[in-house]
Amino acid sequence: MSAYSVLERLSIQLPAVTPPVGAFVPWVQTGNLIFVSGHIAKRDGRPWVGRVGDDVTVADAAAAARSVAIDILGTLHAATGDLTRIRRLVKLLILVNSSPTFTEPHLVANGASELFTTVLGNEAGAHARSAIGVAQLPFGSCVEVELIAEV
Amino acid sequence: MSAYSVLERLSIQLPAVTPPVGAFVPWVQTGNLIFVSGHIAKRDGRPWVGRVGDDVTVADAAAAARSVAIDILGTLHAATGDLTRIRRLVKLLILVNSSPTFTEPHLVANGASELFTTVLGNEAGAHARSAIGVAQLPFGSCVEVELIAEV
Amino acid sequence: MSAYSVLERLSIQLPAVTPPVGAFVPWVQTGNLIFVSGHIAKRDGRPWVGRVGDDVTVADAAAAARSVAIDILGTLHAATGDLTRIRRLVKLLILVNSSPTFTEPHLVANGASELFTTVLGNEAGAHARSAIGVAQLPFGSCVEVELIAEV
Repeated sequence: MSAYSVLERLSIQLPAVTPPVGAFVPWVQTGNLIFVSGHIAKRDGRPWVGRVGDDVTVADAAAAARSVAIDILGTLHAATGDLTRIRRLVKLLILVNSSPTFTEPHLVANGASELFTTVLGNEAGAHARSAIGVAQLPFGSCVEVELIAEV
Repeated sequence: MSAYSVLERLSIQLPAVTPPVGAFVPWVQTGNLIFVSGHIAKRDGRPWVGRVGDDVTVADAAAAARSVAIDILGTLHAATGDLTRIRRLVKLLILVNSSPTFTEPHLVANGASELFTTVLGNEAGAHARSAIGVAQLPFGSCVEVELIAEV
Repeated sequence: MSAYSVLERLSIQLPAVTPPVGAFVPWVQTGNLIFVSGHIAKRDGRPWVGRVGDDVTVADAAAAARSVAIDILGTLHAATGDLTRIRRLVKLLILVNSSPTFTEPHLVANGASELFTTVLGNEAGAHARSAIGVAQLPFGSCVEVELIAEV
């Protein structure tokens, strides 16, 4: 099943690329690698604010990470013209806005990782990754994800 | 206008590469990609210390990020022999030493992003990036930037 | 002296690759670059827990970083079939679980950097890197390292 069929089955609509707030671009392609800028979690078009361990649950943060993955697929669609051109994901960096005592950023990260493998399949969607808890993120958002993909 | 002309117009002198404190090197080239080590902000040759949200203002941190960008251009000059060999910047990771309540690392990051696009131009200087707030940085510096460039 | 001879001389046994906890893979190769997932520090097969500046000393954290480097060599051995296929390391990201006042993540990072250069030699082992202090890491581990290597 193609990525677009899966998205349709899941009732996921890819968003248009959000213009970055700042002096940078949403992605850069060099050779056959696409480096995607950090995308922050949003809800209803606004930053999905909060710190996991304080005022955001793991389940909500995982849902936020899943929503970032959808936004990144939107960016990859714009970057490639066609998601089927993605040969495989390479690496994710998942940043979780964490209280100093929250030790499960990997569970939050799974929200993004699982969406990618569901949509792109187990081969193209498989990726290396690091998940870490950070002190803060742009606009106070609870999750940020950056990604490298191979076309 | 070439990168060197812009630097001259801005009265910016590129520093020599600072030898790393530790068992690593300032940059590695693999294929046509140059991976530049994290550079911390310095002032008067010493670490530019502080935490944004505590004892460093956003404006000062953005100035610190700009100064890191200048130091990285010095490293890229050493790596390439000639900045005009840089085909484009690829990605920046901007790390801001943040209090848990400071939610504008992107404004700090703009200090670096804008210097790069000013010096290298809108095409070669455009880059993907992620900006994040971290708990601490080497020597207590307020900003650290790492970068990937394509030659 | 080959990497394997050095490992034998140091009485280091490479571990088998630990299956990731989550929807990702331990490494991805794209072209001649291998992107290795973040590896957390372990002791006696369990997460090496703690925060530097609170309940973990710099010396212990550097030992933890060294142990992560060994685990990553195990992963690189699995990825390459033979460590001598590694042309060089490219970049390390060393994440240190830090109290807000711990300003020496670079000393912790040296534990990993030095093991790599010892085992792979000064040429193949030399690498760019960034060392940062983060709010938390998976399972509360004190150090996490991710790496890019060229084959």
